[in-house]
Formats: sequence, C-alpha cells, structure tokens
Amino acid sequence: MPRLKCIVAYDGTRYAGYQVQPNGNTVQEELEKALAKMHKGEKVKITASGRTDSGVHAKGQVIHFDTNLTIPPSNWKRALDSMLPPDIHIADAEEAADDFHARYDATGKEYRYFVWNSREPDIFRRHFSCHVKIPLNLEAMKKACRIIEGEHDFTSFCSSRTDVKGSKVRTIHQAFIEKDGAELTFIFKGSGFLYNMVRILVGTILEVGRGEREPEDLKAMIEALDREAAGKTAPPHGLFLWKVDY
Amino acid sequence: MPRLKCIVAYDGTRYAGYQVQPNGNTVQEELEKALAKMHKGEKVKITASGRTDSGVHAKGQVIHFDTNLTIPPSNWKRALDSMLPPDIHIADAEEAADDFHARYDATGKEYRYFVWNSREPDIFRRHFSCHVKIPLNLEAMKKACRIIEGEHDFTSFCSSRTDVKGSKVRTIHQAFIEKDGAELTFIFKGSGFLYNMVRILVGTILEVGRGEREPEDLKAMIEALDREAAGKTAPPHGLFLWKVDY
Repeated sequence: MPRLKCIVAYDGTRYAGYQVQPNGNTVQEELEKALAKMHKGEKVKITASGRTDSGVHAKGQVIHFDTNLTIPPSNWKRALDSMLPPDIHIADAEEAADDFHARYDATGKEYRYFVWNSREPDIFRRHFSCHVKIPLNLEAMKKACRIIEGEHDFTSFCSSRTDVKGSKVRTIHQAFIEKDGAELTFIFKGSGFLYNMVRILVGTILEVGRGEREPEDLKAMIEALDREAAGKTAPPHGLFLWKVDY
Repeated sequence: MPRLKCIVAYDGTRYAGYQVQPNGNTVQEELEKALAKMHKGEKVKITASGRTDSGVHAKGQVIHFDTNLTIPPSNWKRALDSMLPPDIHIADAEEAADDFHARYDATGKEYRYFVWNSREPDIFRRHFSCHVKIPLNLEAMKKACRIIEGEHDFTSFCSSRTDVKGSKVRTIHQAFIEKDGAELTFIFKGSGFLYNMVRILVGTILEVGRGEREPEDLKAMIEALDREAAGKTAPPHGLFLWKVDY
C-alpha cells in the first residue's frame, strides 16, 4: 500500500490546534474527513511531524498516510486539496518510502514568529502577527538570539504541560530576526522544539526588546532549568511552523 | 457642536458592506453602535466619503459626525477605537471645520486592488487578494492602464445597479501596477469612481493579462458607453479604499 507524504499549509485561526481532541474543530479532523470522503468513508490514519496549538499557523506542516487508492501521485495534491476548506491547503504531495515517518524521520524544524512593532495596529495582519506598540530594541534582541543558539537544556523554555519525560536538550542551529518596516520576523531553526518553546523564547526576547531584561540574562535563565526563570509565553497567532527537514 | 473627521480602516470580510442596510451587519452600524455607547445611547449621524461593497476593505475611509461630548480631540481616536471590534480601526481623528463634509468635499480617491498571481494560492491572503492561477502578461496590462488614464465617460465600467443619474464622466489621474513577487497591486487615483468601477476595470485588465483581450480594445470599450462591452467584475475581496483626498 503506497505511502503519501504531503506538505500542508493552514491558517490556524478557527482551529483548536492541529491534533484531534474532544472539544473543538482541528486541522487533523478536516484532513481525516477529506481522506475519508476519498476512501468511501474508510478512516485513514494520518501522522504529522508534530502538533501545533490553537491559533498557530503552518506554512510547511508535513503529514504521511497510507492509501490503497490508485490515484497517480501527481494528481494527489489537487485531489486532496479540492476536498479541504479554504484555510487548509496541500502545498505538495508525493509518494514516500514505505517506512517514511513524518514525525520520527524529521531531522529539524523551522519556526517563524511575526511581530508588528508600531503604535498603530495593522488590522489586516491581526490573525498573523503579534502587535507590540512600544518601540523594541532590535540590537538587544539580536544579542539575546545569539545566546540561545547552540545546544542547551531548554527546560526553562518548556511549558510545564509538556509530556516530554526524557531529555530537554535541544540544538538551535540559528536564531535571528529580520526587520522590514514595522514587521519583525523571528526565525528559529533547530533539531527539535519543546512544547511552547518558540513562544516562550519570543516572549522572553520581547521582554529584552522592551528593556525589562538584559540580553545576558538569558544565560542564567537557561541555567536555571526552571520555567519560572524565563519570560511570558508569546500569543499563538504570530507563530508559523515554517518547514520540516528530513 | 464640534465636527469630528476620522480616518477608518476596516477588514470588510465579515461585513455586508459599509452602509447600513436591512440585511446583514455593516461597518456603519458598528461605528454608530460605538458612538451611541459614548453618547449615552443617543444616535449620532455619520457621513462617509462613500460606501464600499460587501467584502471590500478600507485603509483610509473618511467619516464625519457632530458631537456634544467634551472629549479633547487628541483623545477621540483612542476613545472611539476602544469601542470598536478588532476588524475596524480608527487610524486618525481630528476636529474639522463646521462645514466639512466627508462626501461632498472629497476631491479625489485612491483605490488599490491586490492580485496573487501564482499557481499556488497563499491561504493567508485569501481574504485580501484575488488569486489568479495562470500567468498574466504584465506589459499588456500596463498598456491597458495607460489607455484608461485621463477624462472619459466610464458608462461601460459602471454597474447597471448604479443610482448615478447624471454624468458618468470621471478623470483617472493615475492607473498603474506594481509587482512584488507573485503579488500585483493595481493602483487607481481619480477624481471619483462610479459604482463597481474599479472592480470592472480590474476584471477587464485581467482579461487583457490572460490574453483574452488586447490592450487597445479598451478604447472601443470606453467609446461603447455600454456595460456589456467591458469585462467581468473582479471579486470584492481584493479591493481596498486606500485614501480619500480633500
């Protein structure tokens, strides 16, 4: 039975996150509904690279599933896309190796977090970026980014609601900020990320940008191995799962 | 009684247009509700530079109203803004002359229309730009823009549902297209615009871009003085009322 790998984009605004759960509509549910329609009502099990929280978006979520349909791989993208609501889009679909696994085979991920830094809001970005009214110190935030790069135990930057029981050591290959007018883009590339890790990192770096903390404070925060040491969790709607590497 | 002039931005997605009407929620209604709250339930009459259709957005709609509240003009922006839903924003508020009129004193308007020209949709722009999958001929569309510039009778580019009974002669000072990757921005600056005029112009220019019409065909279309001669009306969600001049 061939295995399909798909790249999925979604606007997370009206979803209770990626993963199926008792309350609320989820992205996975929409994908499962669409696949069930294509498979004459039969349930198709979907595996994603990981979950995303309520309100978080994706440009490049990756999923896999097995199918007995005899659709040529080149037609899968359009066939599945046409069954989905306008806020979920299949950006790519291809046949994968029988043992490809969207979660276990991921070697790295990229997340991006968008901040609109201006006194005036941009209402047209309100679901896709976090509005910060007071001027942020970009140089200080860039310094903070350099401190978090590398291999660290990120316990301080992991929500206490995590279900990770093993090591919280992760490697951030790159953490940097791009500025385009009032729009700041925080880019994080790493081996893997803990629950809420990017949002806690951004929330903390924004505190540095506001002058409430010094960039150097991040060293002690990492060493504390205590969620209480780090800053607030930034809101979900600025965050995008941008890319998954295999 | 002082007269206030406000610049209003709105995301038109969930509104049945600007102007109050029997069915559906409108931007004007939200503004009136907010002003009534501020005026102890008293109804405040609002006049706008013009209406916008269902799904059409505004960066710079202008309204005026009279008020007997003793709020300093510098506090009006925040006071009114705080009463409005997140998809309507007061970008500016100032005291105007007693005889200022948002509609009659307008000397010109700027509209922008956004097209996302790529095989792939950008789901994050789906409410704010019109997706055109097939490649468009930019040079041909630029030629078409130059033909519509100047003073013309735009009867062919006016919806038959207009309530304009007089002259349909209008002057387009500038019509041009900016390209930034897959995003095309159609910019129209003119003395005034008829009902659906920008959307019919864009719909027609897109037919030129697709090779279905020649740029020179626009001359005959203008001369025909017949709505049937021009192209289709482009969808509302790509359109922004960008600026009103006084």
